[in-house]
Amino acid sequence: MRSTIKLSRDVYIIASASVVGKHEDDGPLGGRFDVTDETGTDEFGAKTWESAEGEMQRLALSEALRKASMTDAELAAIFAGDLQNQCVGSAYGLLGFDAPYFGLYGACSTCAEGLILASLISSAYGLTTAAVASSHNCAAERQFRYPVEYGGQRAPTAQWTVTGAGAFVLSADEKHRGSPKITEVLPGRSIDRGINDLNNMGAAMAPAAIDTLCRYFDETGRSPDSFDMIVTGDLGAEGSRILTEFLSAAGHDVSSRHADCGLMIYDREKSDKHSGGSGCGCSASVLSASILPRMGVDLHDILFMATGALMSPASVQQGNSIPGICHLLRICADKRS
Amino acid sequence: MRSTIKLSRDVYIIASASVVGKHEDDGPLGGRFDVTDETGTDEFGAKTWESAEGEMQRLALSEALRKASMTDAELAAIFAGDLQNQCVGSAYGLLGFDAPYFGLYGACSTCAEGLILASLISSAYGLTTAAVASSHNCAAERQFRYPVEYGGQRAPTAQWTVTGAGAFVLSADEKHRGSPKITEVLPGRSIDRGINDLNNMGAAMAPAAIDTLCRYFDETGRSPDSFDMIVTGDLGAEGSRILTEFLSAAGHDVSSRHADCGLMIYDREKSDKHSGGSGCGCSASVLSASILPRMGVDLHDILFMATGALMSPASVQQGNSIPGICHLLRICADKRS
Repeated sequence: MRSTIKLSRDVYIIASASVVGKHEDDGPLGGRFDVTDETGTDEFGAKTWESAEGEMQRLALSEALRKASMTDAELAAIFAGDLQNQCVGSAYGLLGFDAPYFGLYGACSTCAEGLILASLISSAYGLTTAAVASSHNCAAERQFRYPVEYGGQRAPTAQWTVTGAGAFVLSADEKHRGSPKITEVLPGRSIDRGINDLNNMGAAMAPAAIDTLCRYFDETGRSPDSFDMIVTGDLGAEGSRILTEFLSAAGHDVSSRHADCGLMIYDREKSDKHSGGSGCGCSASVLSASILPRMGVDLHDILFMATGALMSPASVQQGNSIPGICHLLRICADKRS
Repeated sequence: MRSTIKLSRDVYIIASASVVGKHEDDGPLGGRFDVTDETGTDEFGAKTWESAEGEMQRLALSEALRKASMTDAELAAIFAGDLQNQCVGSAYGLLGFDAPYFGLYGACSTCAEGLILASLISSAYGLTTAAVASSHNCAAERQFRYPVEYGGQRAPTAQWTVTGAGAFVLSADEKHRGSPKITEVLPGRSIDRGINDLNNMGAAMAPAAIDTLCRYFDETGRSPDSFDMIVTGDLGAEGSRILTEFLSAAGHDVSSRHADCGLMIYDREKSDKHSGGSGCGCSASVLSASILPRMGVDLHDILFMATGALMSPASVQQGNSIPGICHLLRICADKRS
C-alpha cells in the first residue's frame, strides 16, 4: 500500500535548537549551533558521559521552547530518543519537562521518526508537540564499541558518533506561517541486506535509504529535480556513495542534490573523522543549525531522510546482520500569506 | 494543559494475539494464550533467548493478522518495542513484515504507548496499524540483573519478567463494529519519586500510575465507579498496594475495580513469583488473552494503564533513581448498530 502520508494540515517547525560538543563546533558548521560546552570537555557539567547527554537534551529543548516563547506546559507530547541502552539519555534528560513523553528507539533515524510522529499528531489534533534526539560520542563508544580511553584503532569505513542534540517544536497553528513546514511524511521499513560489519554502518543503512526514496518517487511521481536538497542523516562517505550509485542505476540521479549530515558536520581530512559523522544527534543538530535556517533563503523544498541501524552489540555478536531503516519528511519554506 | 485526547473516530481492536512461555501457560490464565512453545523450553526454536523473543513477536503479529484476515501489506505502521538493548527483539522479530516500522522504548509501558500512537494515527488518518510488545524472562534477566543460570536470590519485592508477547491490529473502519474500541487516550508523564531499588519496580512505577489516573479523573469528571475495571500493567503486589492507598487518600477508591496484569498472570504462592509479573509482554499478553475476550461479556468500559520504569542498569549504578511512566487508554465494548 501507499506509504506516503500527506498531512491534512501543514505542520510548522516553529522553533528548534542544537547543542554540540567541541569536535562539532570546531567543524565547518562551527558557530551556528545554539549551545556548546564552554569548558571544551563535552561534559556539560555532568559526572558521567551518559548524564552529559541527558543534559544536552535538556538544554536543546529548553532553548527551543525559549525561542518559541513557550513553556513545557503547552506541549501535548514530547517524542524523544537516543542511542543509550533503554534510551536513558532522553528519559533522564527530559524528566524535568512537565509534558507527556513518548520514548522512541529508531537508532540514528530517531530525529526523523520523532518529527514524523510529532507532525502526524500536531496536524490531526491541533496540538503543539516536540521532537528531541541526541547522541554523545563518549557514551556511545563505550556502549557500542570500546571506551574512548582504550584508544582503539578505527576502520576507514567507521563513522564518528556526533556529540550533539537537536530539539524541535511543532504546531499546525496558522499563526506560525512563515516557519518551515512539514507537508508529507514517509515512515520507513526495516531493510536487511546482510551487512554484518559494525564498522560500516553506512553500507548497512544505505539500502533502507534507497528503498524509502524510490518508494517516495514512485508514489508521488516526483523526481530528484523537484527538490533543492535531498539530505540523508548519517550515511557518511561509504553509504552516500552506495546511495547515489544505486539510485542512479534505478533511474534517479540524485548526485547534484544529495547531501549527508554526517559529511556536513566535520572536515574529515582535518579532523580524522574517517567516513564522517553518525548518531541520532548528527542529523538532529545539523537540521536545526544548518538546514532549517536556510529554508526560504537558498532552500525551498527539501527531503530530510534520517537513517538508522537497528542492531545491538549483542545481536551482532550473536551472528545477526544489521537491519537499516530510513524515515523521510518533506520540508518546505512557507511564504507568509 | 489537558492531557486526555478523545479520538475523533473510535478505533477498533479488530484482532489480537498472545504468545507466552511455560511459566505463563502454567498460570491461572493457562490455555487462553494463542501460542506457547510446545517444547516447554521457552526457546521458540531459536538459538538465543534474544532471538526467541523476536520469534515471539513474529508469531504474535502473524497470528493477529491471520485472525484479522489481513496481510502485512495492509498495515500503514507497526509500533513495537521490548526491553532488550536497542530494542532488537522488535527490530529482528518484525523484520519480515513489509510495513513501516516505528521503534518504541517505553519499558513495560510499551504496549500502551504503542496502542496510543497506533490509535491516534488510525483514528485521524483512516489507516490500519499494529502495536506489538514483548519481553522474555531469560533475555531480560541476563541483561538487567544476572543470567538465570547464576541462580541469584530474589527479593520479596522483585517481580518476574514475563515471557510473553502481544500484538494488536487497529482500524477505525466502521466495518469492524462489534470489536472492542479505544475511545480516549492519556499519554503519561515521567515521574521520579526517588526510588532507586532495582528490585522494587512496583514502587518506582506506582507514582506515575497515580499521576495518570488522577489526571484522567480530574480532566473527565469520571470516577472509579464509571468503569468495570481499572487495570494496570505490572505494578505487582507492592506497587498495587501503593496505588490503591494513595488513590484512596486522594479521594478515589479504586480497590473494588483495580486489577493488575502482573497479579493476574501467575499464581504467586504456587509458583514463587514474589511480587508478580512484569515486562512489556505482561500487559500485552494479558490484555490480548484475558481482558479483550471479556469485553462485551462481563466488561464494558475499562481503563488500561501500562506502567514502565525508564532506567537502565547503568543509570542506576551511576546513582540515579528510577523514573516511572504510565500511559492510559479507555477501551469500551461496542454494540453493533
